[in-house]
Amino acid sequence: MLNKSHIQVLKRIVGEENCYDDKAHLVAYCYDATKERYEPEAVVFPRNESDVSAVLTYCNDNKIPIIPRGAGSGFTGGALPVKGGIVLAMERHFNRILEIDEKNLIARVQPGVVNKIFQEAVEAKGLFYPPDPASQEYSTLGGNVSENAGGMRAAKYGITKDYVMALRAVLPNGDIIRAGKKTIKDVAGFNVAGILIASEGSLAVITEITLKLIAKPKFARSAMGVFNDIESAMNAVYKTMASGITPVAMEFLDNLSINAVEERFHKGLPTNAGAILITQVDGDLEQQLDFQLDILEQRFKENGCIDFKIAQNDEEAQNLWFARRNVSQSITIYGKKKLNEDITVPRSALPELLNRISALSGKYGFKIPCFGHTGDGNVHVNVMVKDPSDKAELQKGYECIEEIFKIAIELEGTLSGEHGIGLSKAPFMRLAFSEAEMDLFARIKKAFDPHNILNPGKMGL
Amino acid sequence: MLNKSHIQVLKRIVGEENCYDDKAHLVAYCYDATKERYEPEAVVFPRNESDVSAVLTYCNDNKIPIIPRGAGSGFTGGALPVKGGIVLAMERHFNRILEIDEKNLIARVQPGVVNKIFQEAVEAKGLFYPPDPASQEYSTLGGNVSENAGGMRAAKYGITKDYVMALRAVLPNGDIIRAGKKTIKDVAGFNVAGILIASEGSLAVITEITLKLIAKPKFARSAMGVFNDIESAMNAVYKTMASGITPVAMEFLDNLSINAVEERFHKGLPTNAGAILITQVDGDLEQQLDFQLDILEQRFKENGCIDFKIAQNDEEAQNLWFARRNVSQSITIYGKKKLNEDITVPRSALPELLNRISALSGKYGFKIPCFGHTGDGNVHVNVMVKDPSDKAELQKGYECIEEIFKIAIELEGTLSGEHGIGLSKAPFMRLAFSEAEMDLFARIKKAFDPHNILNPGKMGL
Repeated sequence: MLNKSHIQVLKRIVGEENCYDDKAHLVAYCYDATKERYEPEAVVFPRNESDVSAVLTYCNDNKIPIIPRGAGSGFTGGALPVKGGIVLAMERHFNRILEIDEKNLIARVQPGVVNKIFQEAVEAKGLFYPPDPASQEYSTLGGNVSENAGGMRAAKYGITKDYVMALRAVLPNGDIIRAGKKTIKDVAGFNVAGILIASEGSLAVITEITLKLIAKPKFARSAMGVFNDIESAMNAVYKTMASGITPVAMEFLDNLSINAVEERFHKGLPTNAGAILITQVDGDLEQQLDFQLDILEQRFKENGCIDFKIAQNDEEAQNLWFARRNVSQSITIYGKKKLNEDITVPRSALPELLNRISALSGKYGFKIPCFGHTGDGNVHVNVMVKDPSDKAELQKGYECIEEIFKIAIELEGTLSGEHGIGLSKAPFMRLAFSEAEMDLFARIKKAFDPHNILNPGKMGL
Repeated sequence: MLNKSHIQVLKRIVGEENCYDDKAHLVAYCYDATKERYEPEAVVFPRNESDVSAVLTYCNDNKIPIIPRGAGSGFTGGALPVKGGIVLAMERHFNRILEIDEKNLIARVQPGVVNKIFQEAVEAKGLFYPPDPASQEYSTLGGNVSENAGGMRAAKYGITKDYVMALRAVLPNGDIIRAGKKTIKDVAGFNVAGILIASEGSLAVITEITLKLIAKPKFARSAMGVFNDIESAMNAVYKTMASGITPVAMEFLDNLSINAVEERFHKGLPTNAGAILITQVDGDLEQQLDFQLDILEQRFKENGCIDFKIAQNDEEAQNLWFARRNVSQSITIYGKKKLNEDITVPRSALPELLNRISALSGKYGFKIPCFGHTGDGNVHVNVMVKDPSDKAELQKGYECIEEIFKIAIELEGTLSGEHGIGLSKAPFMRLAFSEAEMDLFARIKKAFDPHNILNPGKMGL
């Protein structure tokens, strides 16, 4: 428990105006996108790396939990102070783009920079930062690194970890470290940056991120394929990817998802379709786009595509993407609470995954709309609970989710493609990892954070 | 010290025919590409993962050093048993390609598979595994992962770590773990695969590797630019890369390197040139290649290129690449011993790096031919010691190398782009890493290997 003297020390470190323990602040920093609520005992806004180091040293000496926080937009409770302690809020003083190095195609940023703001800044210079989580308008790059955020463009361009070249971070004992380099090649010392990525704020507090940029492709075009059944669509996905072209994105909506968007927005979507695939290709030459779209159309039609449409201009492209962009909010027509999981499997297992989810829907009686990033095998599975105040129904929902996790693991997939484990998926870690693997995680945690002060109670540790 | 009873136990585990302590075997496994020699006390060829686990458990219980070994082709002593113990030789029973999964563009291999054999196997299926260390004809994929091997194609296609999706490995305590998944996205648990890559066999013994493949680009073309001075060439490198095209490779030879090849092979190379850049572009369309070559030529000529030649056929391409492929053996005309370091800096620092190395050559009186992978900022710097039996001269060589490391670090580069630290660069780790960083490395090591049995005495730990 924090007492007044702890608060006094923290105020001395960061200044009165950067440390709060009033109710308003505790409530303002008690949430994330899970809708779960845990109030911290104080909210601290470090002004710089020295502040972070001093706060961590103090917390380490006094065994006070400390939870780094970006925008609080995570889906698995990563930023929730479940054991109380201090929320270390990075958005106020760590929100600067420090450098966009056009000579080396590199940027240095602070962790509180919002993804979209960064994307716009680099695109203004003709450069490109591909990772585009759905939360890009508010989620921060520090959060993106901590959860290893993905997005729609991952099929072609990879995920956050593929763009992190170096980090500065502060360890729980206050030590400031650098990890990684501004160079593509670097094999000196252990890959500490590699293990900080996706560590969900449980190993160190990231204070600076060096990101790789690429040149912005000059052209992009979108297309949509309509399929009678979902299995055909899933076959089309992996066969397209295996045939040697790599679309930027290959997004799908199942029949329930299509109908949800149509019911809310009346866009003339094919409501009888088993699935639609929306895809985008890009490149520096128009011919490259034609080449890719030709192969795409062939593969789609060979695999049961009954209608294939290429957007002829920006407006048509926006229309094709409308359904995908609005599906998440639309499916709420099926239930007040969605248990939303970001299952990922090898692409060739997508047909079986979707078939087995459909069987579960029958078994449990839930509607389970699915959509997502099939180009990289990442499906957002939504178990829709009509009335979450009905404890029995909610419990059944969780049982259904557990079965879905088991299926994903059986198909050599993962519990989480991009949301992380945090609190929400912690109970399922032992489905995916052996005792030996969990023990190793615990020893790694201890090597960084011997007193378990950083984001305690997460990841099943 | 191993005694006869240790050997008996090891023989019981792996079978008589897979465990040796005779002089012939100890000598056969005492070397690597550094030319340093350290005899092990036994050589063990594990037949399978259970053998690896049993041997490690035994070594862990008895505090016996154990050194995993692929082809022994490393440049920094990573496979040398400097503290005695057992060499765990993976080449005999861990040399199978287990699966090439064309549906998901993934392969599973054992660590003893030779890089080139794997490349040929995937190319036979129209697929492509880009990492191509110069040692590709003999180095193993397990070694490549353990050292995070690079190669010529890194500028466009990245390095080994960019292709490792998952690993199976055995920890010193005998625990068998899996790390990573067959999926592009996976954010469940700490990124253990990430930290095993480049860990130089000091954290775990890798028993299986899952690698990402890509489709093989249909076309490739090569070109060469001749520059009057090295600074112009280095400017051309980073300005080309910054202008948005990404050649597969951008290799350079300085004047000393050009003259060495010419003296040995009489190929009509431009011996007055300050530097040549040899480059390759690829793609699935001829137009893409033309587009890239056009920009390349423009950038080269804007930056002092006095002669630009595009290979018109395979034979001409082979001729362009001849100098690069034969430079390493040719520069031995400048001295009996080369102190060969793979310095890497951000590309825009290449002009300054090369200028300062040239100044050092003057200061110390050594010829220092430089060549390498400038597309990713990776330069092979060779301090040529005429007579290594002259202890004073050799000592001066090492001092010169140390100054070069300091320059690389100052320019935000790294001690090693692709060779690793091992034994050879261990004395320089503290130039690059703070005490806090070295302490963290030690704690990570301890989390995996509390008794320091795995490849002890390396990486400055």
